[in-house]
Amino acid sequence: MASEKITLRSENFSDWYNQVVIAAELADYAPVRGCMVVRPYGWALWENIQAALDQRFKATGHVNAAFPLFIPMSFLEKEKEHIEGFSPELAVVTIGGGQVLEEPWVVRPTSETIIGFMYAKWIKSYRDLPVLINQWGNVVRWEMRTKLFLRTLEFYWQEGHTAHATKEEAQEETLRMLDVYADFSINEAAVPVIPGRKTESEKFSGAVDSYSIEAMMGDTRALQAGTSHFLGQNFAKAFDIQYLDHHNQLQHVWTTSWGLSTRFIGAIIMTHGDDQGLILPPKVAPIQVVIIPIYRNDDEASRVLPVVKRIQTELGNFRLKVDNREEVTPGFKFNDWELKGVPLRIEIGPKDVSKGTVALARRDKPGKDGRSFVPQENLNLQVSELLTSIQSDLYDNAVSFRANNTHESESYAEFKDIVTHGWAYTWWCGNSDCEQKIKEETRATARCIPLDERDGMGRCIYCGEPATEKVYFARAY
Amino acid sequence: MASEKITLRSENFSDWYNQVVIAAELADYAPVRGCMVVRPYGWALWENIQAALDQRFKATGHVNAAFPLFIPMSFLEKEKEHIEGFSPELAVVTIGGGQVLEEPWVVRPTSETIIGFMYAKWIKSYRDLPVLINQWGNVVRWEMRTKLFLRTLEFYWQEGHTAHATKEEAQEETLRMLDVYADFSINEAAVPVIPGRKTESEKFSGAVDSYSIEAMMGDTRALQAGTSHFLGQNFAKAFDIQYLDHHNQLQHVWTTSWGLSTRFIGAIIMTHGDDQGLILPPKVAPIQVVIIPIYRNDDEASRVLPVVKRIQTELGNFRLKVDNREEVTPGFKFNDWELKGVPLRIEIGPKDVSKGTVALARRDKPGKDGRSFVPQENLNLQVSELLTSIQSDLYDNAVSFRANNTHESESYAEFKDIVTHGWAYTWWCGNSDCEQKIKEETRATARCIPLDERDGMGRCIYCGEPATEKVYFARAY
Repeated sequence: MASEKITLRSENFSDWYNQVVIAAELADYAPVRGCMVVRPYGWALWENIQAALDQRFKATGHVNAAFPLFIPMSFLEKEKEHIEGFSPELAVVTIGGGQVLEEPWVVRPTSETIIGFMYAKWIKSYRDLPVLINQWGNVVRWEMRTKLFLRTLEFYWQEGHTAHATKEEAQEETLRMLDVYADFSINEAAVPVIPGRKTESEKFSGAVDSYSIEAMMGDTRALQAGTSHFLGQNFAKAFDIQYLDHHNQLQHVWTTSWGLSTRFIGAIIMTHGDDQGLILPPKVAPIQVVIIPIYRNDDEASRVLPVVKRIQTELGNFRLKVDNREEVTPGFKFNDWELKGVPLRIEIGPKDVSKGTVALARRDKPGKDGRSFVPQENLNLQVSELLTSIQSDLYDNAVSFRANNTHESESYAEFKDIVTHGWAYTWWCGNSDCEQKIKEETRATARCIPLDERDGMGRCIYCGEPATEKVYFARAY
Repeated sequence: MASEKITLRSENFSDWYNQVVIAAELADYAPVRGCMVVRPYGWALWENIQAALDQRFKATGHVNAAFPLFIPMSFLEKEKEHIEGFSPELAVVTIGGGQVLEEPWVVRPTSETIIGFMYAKWIKSYRDLPVLINQWGNVVRWEMRTKLFLRTLEFYWQEGHTAHATKEEAQEETLRMLDVYADFSINEAAVPVIPGRKTESEKFSGAVDSYSIEAMMGDTRALQAGTSHFLGQNFAKAFDIQYLDHHNQLQHVWTTSWGLSTRFIGAIIMTHGDDQGLILPPKVAPIQVVIIPIYRNDDEASRVLPVVKRIQTELGNFRLKVDNREEVTPGFKFNDWELKGVPLRIEIGPKDVSKGTVALARRDKPGKDGRSFVPQENLNLQVSELLTSIQSDLYDNAVSFRANNTHESESYAEFKDIVTHGWAYTWWCGNSDCEQKIKEETRATARCIPLDERDGMGRCIYCGEPATEKVYFARAY
């Protein structure tokens, strides 16, 4: 039961976030450093995210499987950049069944290596390609500064790993899955994202090209909400994944990997939430509609509750909850479900029963604007339309917010100002030194080079040299 | 692609099992000792098992959540029997982020302790009870002798953990979930099971009472296919999980835990399989129907393939696969899908097209008995009826097999003979010494004391003393 006061979003965004996660019972701190417990309400949200993604993965020909949690340390060392990137972040099992292990086992931070090993065993001929496998699971990265959902030692995700006969196919797959992520994000979670390519220094360790979807949070900081990597033949060569082509020649395969994690829950919270707490997009909300019966005595209850019951049945196609707690007031319930971000509230009191109406309250429009009194007839249709409208308004608002806080910059002085309170979209020469200097001086990092960038030429915002790439820079989570 | 010859089931059951798992591409050996890779076909089977169970859990009021993979060693030590039981089986993380940890972290072998810690934090009053949480995840137990699905270092499972105000409620929950497992096993997997109580020496470490469902495999050995534990107040006291009751008095809660794992896939394989490979029950089969188009040239193909396409659409409500591989013969395909246990095969050739028929072949009745030629009209209904009949025949056969291989024993000599090739159902005095002696002398263990046992009295099969409990003894996996 949540009743604590939470910090205002406008006052301290970070405190607001932490408090909302706890108070709405999405997650809790675990008694192991940097780990989280995902509570039932948070896990139900994740299950809806999983279902929406999994359906898209299957529609694009992918199947699920499960690979081991443990990876021999030597596997990670086979791909040089991979081990360099991940070695500071590893959790290592050194004792098993009371014995010290001959070779330490790493708790997987990601599974390219062990999956690569298996692919080398399974793939023989061009007929075995493409291999399109996804895994839902947990991974561990030893983060120093953690934050619930956004950065925890253990987190939950899916990781797709595919192998292809040609470079072109693998590149297509990389972009196809990036597109799947963008489609999911926009159409299910109402989180607008910029799909784009990562700069060299922001790439995944071991990738040839990395892509991400980038979202603007309510404090204007950027959040990388999903990534898709073209791995070239790096892992194919490290693990000797070869196939016989049509001409009976041995060839290395081309691989990709792509992942989206429980971090996305953080994106939903920070995109849509307000001072009252969460606002969940109807399509992924664990509870889409909450009904609050209102009565002060047994007589009123005997008139109100049968109507509540009937309407509950009528709205059976929605994820619906009737809050029939006796020990708290309706006002308390309003606050509680607002905090938990339920998109639509239905109130039914004795007057509504007499008049044949109900009161509806939209979570995304607190106060009078979001409140309406409607007849009980055709309630199912009305609720359906309202939820659709809430979903699209949430998206539109987020798009406007991003537009209002994204600026092109003409000078570095202007750039420095922009990135203190938004995203800068600007020319960059492609040199990692400029990127590094910008990061040091402004704390803004290159988020991505958008896929829909038009050809053109400009001058690097930092060094003034000719530039062909236009990049989003922002402070990021 | 599977084409290897597998060992006959009757010749060497264990080799047959291992080879079927590999050849049917359910799972593979991982490059980490004792771990497995669950391949897409095996994982799809597990997903169907998960869906059938998850629906039952939710229907009985449970919600899902996720607790950390890692447990501080000190947590396990809080419940004396728990740590004694699990300490030989632990995988231990001693290094994180390049540093030696102050306190080692155990990779969870089961989550009573860390969940107990969280419940102590969440539960304050009787209003917070019951807590009915389930978790789908992976756990690790350092087994010395491993076998794919049946016993692996890492395995996948669900673990339910509930907390209640009273002993009676917790006991009811324990039996309710045992019943859910039995219902799932019988009605979805067609695996007959005996639900019963475990003896003292076969109990879960830390439980007051343990219950299991026991199934007879094709070699007559027993397999514990799911367990449900009444934990009393053992973990409540170890972790100080207390609530204020209606009289404002602090009370310890009563807890339960229950689990079913990927081991159940082993149960399905070993209950139904035959010399040709797997036989999967239609309700959980990843592919329920496979269509094999048969043609020898382009002309025949042009007549057969449109009919295949039409029938594929017509049977869209089944999990269906059309095998349109060009590089292998129909005969190869028959063997391949038989090995993979697809319940029903439909063959469509040029003659079928002319006659408006199809050939149907039941996987559970190889040869002529299971073959029929039926008109294409009403095919959907015919397929539906056949799948229902396959499902119930598989169950009936397994029940008969168990009945034929279960015997009551009058003397210990007879008992010793029975357990070399079946289950013995016999009186036992309740003394662990007799149980231990029986195990040493016959390798048979007490599987369970069935719930539906009728009152009565007999004499212990080992010591001859008066006995009130009748027990199934068998050699077990």
